[in-house]
Amino acid sequence: MQKITILIHCKDQKAIIASVTNYIASIDGNIIYLDQHVDANENVFFMRLECEFNTKNWNIEAIKNDFQATLASPFNMSWAMYTQDEKPKMALFISKYDHCLYDILGRHSAGELPLEIPLIISNHEDLKPVADRFNIPFYYVPFTKDTKAEGEQKQLDLLKQYTIDFIVLARYMQIITPKLIAQYPNQIINIHHSFLPAFPGAKPYHSAFMRGVKIIGATSHYVTEELDEGPIIEQDITRVTHSHSIENFIMKGRDLERTVLARAIKLHAERKTIVYDNKTIVFL
Amino acid sequence: MQKITILIHCKDQKAIIASVTNYIASIDGNIIYLDQHVDANENVFFMRLECEFNTKNWNIEAIKNDFQATLASPFNMSWAMYTQDEKPKMALFISKYDHCLYDILGRHSAGELPLEIPLIISNHEDLKPVADRFNIPFYYVPFTKDTKAEGEQKQLDLLKQYTIDFIVLARYMQIITPKLIAQYPNQIINIHHSFLPAFPGAKPYHSAFMRGVKIIGATSHYVTEELDEGPIIEQDITRVTHSHSIENFIMKGRDLERTVLARAIKLHAERKTIVYDNKTIVFL
Amino acid sequence: MQKITILIHCKDQKAIIASVTNYIASIDGNIIYLDQHVDANENVFFMRLECEFNTKNWNIEAIKNDFQATLASPFNMSWAMYTQDEKPKMALFISKYDHCLYDILGRHSAGELPLEIPLIISNHEDLKPVADRFNIPFYYVPFTKDTKAEGEQKQLDLLKQYTIDFIVLARYMQIITPKLIAQYPNQIINIHHSFLPAFPGAKPYHSAFMRGVKIIGATSHYVTEELDEGPIIEQDITRVTHSHSIENFIMKGRDLERTVLARAIKLHAERKTIVYDNKTIVFL
Amino acid sequence: MQKITILIHCKDQKAIIASVTNYIASIDGNIIYLDQHVDANENVFFMRLECEFNTKNWNIEAIKNDFQATLASPFNMSWAMYTQDEKPKMALFISKYDHCLYDILGRHSAGELPLEIPLIISNHEDLKPVADRFNIPFYYVPFTKDTKAEGEQKQLDLLKQYTIDFIVLARYMQIITPKLIAQYPNQIINIHHSFLPAFPGAKPYHSAFMRGVKIIGATSHYVTEELDEGPIIEQDITRVTHSHSIENFIMKGRDLERTVLARAIKLHAERKTIVYDNKTIVFL
Repeated sequence: MQKITILIHCKDQKAIIASVTNYIASIDGNIIYLDQHVDANENVFFMRLECEFNTKNWNIEAIKNDFQATLASPFNMSWAMYTQDEKPKMALFISKYDHCLYDILGRHSAGELPLEIPLIISNHEDLKPVADRFNIPFYYVPFTKDTKAEGEQKQLDLLKQYTIDFIVLARYMQIITPKLIAQYPNQIINIHHSFLPAFPGAKPYHSAFMRGVKIIGATSHYVTEELDEGPIIEQDITRVTHSHSIENFIMKGRDLERTVLARAIKLHAERKTIVYDNKTIVFL
Repeated sequence: MQKITILIHCKDQKAIIASVTNYIASIDGNIIYLDQHVDANENVFFMRLECEFNTKNWNIEAIKNDFQATLASPFNMSWAMYTQDEKPKMALFISKYDHCLYDILGRHSAGELPLEIPLIISNHEDLKPVADRFNIPFYYVPFTKDTKAEGEQKQLDLLKQYTIDFIVLARYMQIITPKLIAQYPNQIINIHHSFLPAFPGAKPYHSAFMRGVKIIGATSHYVTEELDEGPIIEQDITRVTHSHSIENFIMKGRDLERTVLARAIKLHAERKTIVYDNKTIVFL
Repeated sequence: MQKITILIHCKDQKAIIASVTNYIASIDGNIIYLDQHVDANENVFFMRLECEFNTKNWNIEAIKNDFQATLASPFNMSWAMYTQDEKPKMALFISKYDHCLYDILGRHSAGELPLEIPLIISNHEDLKPVADRFNIPFYYVPFTKDTKAEGEQKQLDLLKQYTIDFIVLARYMQIITPKLIAQYPNQIINIHHSFLPAFPGAKPYHSAFMRGVKIIGATSHYVTEELDEGPIIEQDITRVTHSHSIENFIMKGRDLERTVLARAIKLHAERKTIVYDNKTIVFL
Repeated sequence: MQKITILIHCKDQKAIIASVTNYIASIDGNIIYLDQHVDANENVFFMRLECEFNTKNWNIEAIKNDFQATLASPFNMSWAMYTQDEKPKMALFISKYDHCLYDILGRHSAGELPLEIPLIISNHEDLKPVADRFNIPFYYVPFTKDTKAEGEQKQLDLLKQYTIDFIVLARYMQIITPKLIAQYPNQIINIHHSFLPAFPGAKPYHSAFMRGVKIIGATSHYVTEELDEGPIIEQDITRVTHSHSIENFIMKGRDLERTVLARAIKLHAERKTIVYDNKTIVFL
C-alpha cells in the first residue's frame, strides 16, 4: 500500500475537483482525504488530497509527469506531490533559550514529529550539551554585526551540506537576512512570543504587561522580509490576571511558545500548509 | 443565482467524489464548498456540498429526480438536498428556565438563526410573557404522570398543525417519550448541563461540585430513547475553582448552556450535521 | 444578616491587612471573602473584602465614618463601601447593532445582572422596538457633527435625571467626548471588536481577515480620552481558519462581543474592579 | 531576605485572618501574598501566605514553634511552613510511554520546576536511555502479579533511601497499592488520560471515540485507594471532530497529558495545593 499527499492551488475554474478526482480514480487510487478551499475574493482554488494505491508497479515519477501533463498544465496549477516515506529535513536555529529546544527534541525522540533533524545551528555555545544529549550535530556559528555576512554564508553552506528542507527558529535571537529568506521561501518557521499583530518586535511580554491585557499569546509564522509580518501558521493564548508579574507572563508564555511552535512544525512537516498572499491555508 | 446544499452518506466506494462532482459540473453547477469524511472503521462515506447555479430554468424537483436516478440509486446513497430559501421550522419546548429561551429569541430577532419559530410549547405558564415579548404563539400543555399520553398527543397535534421540522428542548424539564422521538428521529435537540458522559441525569452541577472538578461543561445532543446518550452535536467547557459554590457553577453553566445550544441549533438549521451510528458528523 | 463589600487601594505599608481585618472583627463582622494584591513595581496595595454582619443596630453611615477615621485616614486609602442592596444604575448607549442589546436585556430579565437599567439612549431610532419589548424607556438623541455638543448635553441631562451610576456602550457607534468621560471617570464601559491592542479603531474584523490571523478576539475596557486605550476589563477569543470569510469573522465576533461585554458589566456591577494606572484589577 | 510559604486549614472561626496577619506583622514579616477560602458547606477555613523577612537572626525552627504555640494550637490548625530553599524531592514512576517523561525532564532541565528528581523507577527497562540522557539514576523494578509485594517493597526502600517527598506517576501502567498510598498520603500524583469522571479506567480514548464526544481531556489527581477517584488537581481539554481517528485522539491527548501533569507537578512543588474532603484547594 502506497500513500501520497497532493497540494494544489490555481485560479478557480469549473470542474477542477471532478477532473482531479477522476484522474485519481483512473490510476486506481483511493482518495482517503480531500479538503478544498476557494478564496472568493482572490478567486483562487486550493486543495489537499491523500490517496492510497494498491499497485505493484509503483512509479511516483511517472505519476508526477502524468499529473503535470493531464492536470497541472491545463489548469495552470501550482502543485506538489509527496510520498509518505519522504520525511522533510529540518534545521534548528537556536540561541540561549532552551525550552522550545527541549520540547522539540523530546517530541522528536518520542516519535511525534514526521521529520529528520540533521543539525542544530547556534550563535552561542551554551546549548551544545542539550544537542549532545540527543545526539544531534551542533554547529556553533557566531558572528558580530561586522561578520554577519560571513556567518550567514556558513549557515547556508551547512544547510546545503545537510540538504535541509526547512528551518525552524526556536527562539533564535537574530534577524534572518533577505539572502537566507530568498533561499528558503515559506520554509523558515519562527515563533514570536506575542499574539501578533499585537506587540511585534522585542520584549512583547513587557509591552503586554504595561498594557494590562487579560490574555497573552504566541504566534508561529513563516519568515518574510517584513519582521513579524509573515504568514501566520498557528496562534494560541492563555489568560493572565493583575496578579501576574512580568516574570509570570514570561513563564506562562514559555508554555505557549513551545506548544504553538510544535504544532506549526507538525503541520508543515505533514504537508498541511499552503502559503498564498501572505496568509497560510492550514488543512486540518 | 440559486444555491443548494447536499448531504450524502453511503457505503464507501471508488469514484464517489468524482461521480458527484462530475454530475454537478454536468448541470452547470459551481461547487463552492465540499467537505467529505470516510469512517474507516465502518467503511462509510459522508459528504456535504454547497453549489451555486446561474440558470434561468431552475427546477429543483427535476434535479432531485435526476440526482436520485444518476447517483443515489447506483451508489445506494442516503441523501438530502435543500435550497437556500427553505428555512426549517423549529418548535421550542420549555419549562421554567428562561436563559436559553431569551438567548435563542434574541439571536433569532437579531437575524443570526436561519430558521422559523412558529410556536413555543411549555408545561408551565411562567414564561408566557417572554413568548409574548417576541410575538411567538405560546401553548401551555400541562400534564401529570397520569395524563402524560394526553399531553404528548396535544404536543404532536401542535407540531403537525405548524408543520414543525425540528424540536429544541431549551431546558425542558420533562423526559421525551419514545413515541415523540420516533416521530422526529434525529430532529430533537437537547441541552444537558454537564460535560457528557460525565454526570448524566439530574443535578449535574451538584455532582460536579461534589467531585471537585476543575472544569464544567455543557453538551447538546440529539435525543434518543437512551437518556443523555444520544449523538453529541456540540460541547463546551469553562474553568471553575475551589472558590466557586454550587450557585456559581449553576451561573457559569447558564452561559455554557446558552452558547452550546445556540451553536447546535445553528449547525442543525444550516444542514451541517449528519447522524450515523449514534455519532454526529459536523461539517464546519 | 447584612452584607457589605469594601474596595481599598493605597500605598503598600506594613500591617494593612492586619489592621483592616482587626477592624472588621472589632465591629463583629465576619469576613467571607478577602482578596488582595500588591503591585510590586508601583508599591500599591489593593484589597477587596466581603463581610457579613449579624447586628440589629445596623448603621452603614456610622461604619463608613468610623472606617474613614480608623483606617482610611491613617493609611491614606482610596476606598469604597457598598451594601448588598445598592444596585448600580446603568445607562445603555446603542446605535444600530442589536446583538449585545438583546443579550444584556435577556440576561437582565433572567436575573443574572445585579443592576438596574433605567434608560436606553440611542442616536438612531431603529432599536426602539427592542427597548419597548423589555419595557425600558428609550431616548432618541440624534446629532450631527455640528450639533454634537447639544446632543451630548441632552445625554448628560438624561443621565443626571435618572441618577445613572455607569454607562455601557453596547456597540454605540459614536466617540464619547472628553466632557462626558470627565463626568463618568472609569464608569463608561465599551466593547471593542478586536483583541486589543491588535486592530484598534474602525473595521477590526476586516483588518484581522487581511492579516490572516488564526484567532480573533473582543475586548471590554473603560473609556478614556485615548481611543481604544483605556483599562482592559475582560478579553476573550475564538479560533478562525482560512475557510472563514469576513462575514464569518463578524458573525463569530458577535458571540465574543456579547459574552465579553456581559462579563465586564457583571464584574463592574458586582464591585469587583479597581482601576489603577490605566490597568484594571479584577477580583474573581 | 528570607521568604516563607504557610498553608493553613482549620474550622472557620472569627478573627483567624486578623490573628495570623497580626502575628506576621509582630515578627517583622511582610505579607506579599495572601489568599484564603472558606468552604461554607463544611465550615472550613483555608489560607496560603507568602511572607518576606529582612532579619539577620533567622531561625525557622523557632518561628515554627512560636507559630504552633501562638496560633496553631488555639485555632486547632492543620498547617505547614516552608522556606524558599527547601526544594521537594520527586520520584518519577514510569513504564513505556515517554512523552510525559521527556516533557518533565526537559522542563526540569530548563529550570521551570522548583524540585529535585533524585531517581526514576520503572517496571520496564525501555526508557533507561532517556534517564541516562538526563543523568538521573534509573531503577528497574520489575514484578509479576505474584511478586508485586516484593516489587513494592523495593520501591519503598528506594523512596526511603532517597528521602523522597512526593511521587509522580508519569503514565505508570500499574495500580499503586494501599500500602504505598498510606506511606505517601496526598503525595502521589497521577495523570489520567480522560476528562474524569468521564471514562475512568483503561482505554479512555477508545471510549471517548466510541461515544462521539467533541472534546477530550486529561486529569491530574492525587492517588487514593479508589481508582481514578482521588482529589483533582488540574484538568484541561482539547477539541476533536468526527474526522479524528482513535490514533488522532491519542496523539492530541499526549499534548494534554504532558501539559496537565506538568502544571499539577508545579502547583504541588510550589506548595499551592491543600487536600480536603477528597477535593483540592488550588491557590493561584
